[in-house]
Amino acid sequence: MRIALGVTYRGTAYNGWQSQPGGVTVQDRLENALSRFAGQGVRTICAGRTDAGVHGMNQVVHFDTALEREPFSWVRGPNTYLPADVAVQWCHRVSDGFHARNSALGRRYAYILRESAVRPALETGLAGWVFRPLDGAAMRAAASLLIGEHDFSAFRSSECQAKSPVKTLREITIERHGAYWRFEFEASAFLHHMVRNLMGCLVAVGAGSQPPQWVGEVLAGRDRRRAAPTFSPDGLYFLGPRYDPAYGLPQSNLAADWLP
Amino acid sequence: MRIALGVTYRGTAYNGWQSQPGGVTVQDRLENALSRFAGQGVRTICAGRTDAGVHGMNQVVHFDTALEREPFSWVRGPNTYLPADVAVQWCHRVSDGFHARNSALGRRYAYILRESAVRPALETGLAGWVFRPLDGAAMRAAASLLIGEHDFSAFRSSECQAKSPVKTLREITIERHGAYWRFEFEASAFLHHMVRNLMGCLVAVGAGSQPPQWVGEVLAGRDRRRAAPTFSPDGLYFLGPRYDPAYGLPQSNLAADWLP
Repeated sequence: MRIALGVTYRGTAYNGWQSQPGGVTVQDRLENALSRFAGQGVRTICAGRTDAGVHGMNQVVHFDTALEREPFSWVRGPNTYLPADVAVQWCHRVSDGFHARNSALGRRYAYILRESAVRPALETGLAGWVFRPLDGAAMRAAASLLIGEHDFSAFRSSECQAKSPVKTLREITIERHGAYWRFEFEASAFLHHMVRNLMGCLVAVGAGSQPPQWVGEVLAGRDRRRAAPTFSPDGLYFLGPRYDPAYGLPQSNLAADWLP
Repeated sequence: MRIALGVTYRGTAYNGWQSQPGGVTVQDRLENALSRFAGQGVRTICAGRTDAGVHGMNQVVHFDTALEREPFSWVRGPNTYLPADVAVQWCHRVSDGFHARNSALGRRYAYILRESAVRPALETGLAGWVFRPLDGAAMRAAASLLIGEHDFSAFRSSECQAKSPVKTLREITIERHGAYWRFEFEASAFLHHMVRNLMGCLVAVGAGSQPPQWVGEVLAGRDRRRAAPTFSPDGLYFLGPRYDPAYGLPQSNLAADWLP
């Protein structure tokens, strides 16, 4: 049978999601815990790999198993073997046609950015930081130029393994809550470093270093070297994938209430 | 001249505020940074010592120095020597009559508590957790019995060094924001472990283990053994002291916008 899990993690201590030789990754931790609970090796496929330092709110994975267990035991059991910064949040049995990556209709990311003259301390690793005041209207004008189906090569890292740089960016919202800006991005899928590269450009516009239309020029140029530097991973949260509601999977996580 | 600083820190990595032999404390880190910046030893006095794992939002310290510096240089300079989880947020020159501890008219703490069937991961160390549903009305009824001037011996740790167990608890507010409860406490001063012991009792009432009036009986009994176990430090934040507004010191910190 096929099982889907929702996983939340703080990415600070990890070399990203994906297992790698010599690295400490969230996937390693999760599969180790699932395998210990199951008494046999468990390999997972995730909805969206995250980079080093990036947090997962509602990461979704699937795996196949012959074990018959109550769904909640796949939450409680593995959590006893997981470190404090990773936890399974929910479990659903799904049909064999479900695939955590391929069934995703879209993905959402949030970026939390503190704007203040002095650097943060409490929320280190959990929020980005700018000391220059940001112009929300300018950033929204720039963001509007990115919406739609485009070749996002300008915002793609050289290590990106996606087959195509063409993605559909459906929405960018930019809101301010006190000292914190909350950016949300929804797209069909994201290229490697795409949100962090978009953030670098939006912040350059917000700080007045570039006019809003520059972002449109960067997009059209399809040349990574014309974009702003890749922004810090600290404030980046993978909110999770969207699936056909017929699968009945939770679309968010309680911890979303935590973010400003 | 006398200088006052506001300091924010994430307490997770520290053995509390106060310098101690063999310990790694926030005071050690701060005084090391101030001394390096000043080129001479700087010793500080704080508004309220915090325990291991407890966070500081607007901790206030004072010290005396003969150095003539722009106030903001006492923020920017030490911050270059401080680790990422501690930062000076503001600096004000104050009159010699100001004393970070003795001038404080009151102190405020917040406790952030997640209520969910599954343990958190993202906010580990930054929020407490209960898996049983809590009854807000019952907790508020219990909290009302604690307001006023009382002998708080029942909520005092055996290591408490305060001269008197009599303190004035001015306000307890209990609000829910999604999956998170936010408790705020204001008192003339707090005994060692007092907020964590109060939290243990309020949660016992909220979870239905005890009726609200039990908290009044514990208070009247003045016997620590009758109270609930000391609650986790994870979700505890020292919001800061209150001073006479004539001193012109900031009463809060931007990072307060971060909390649910």
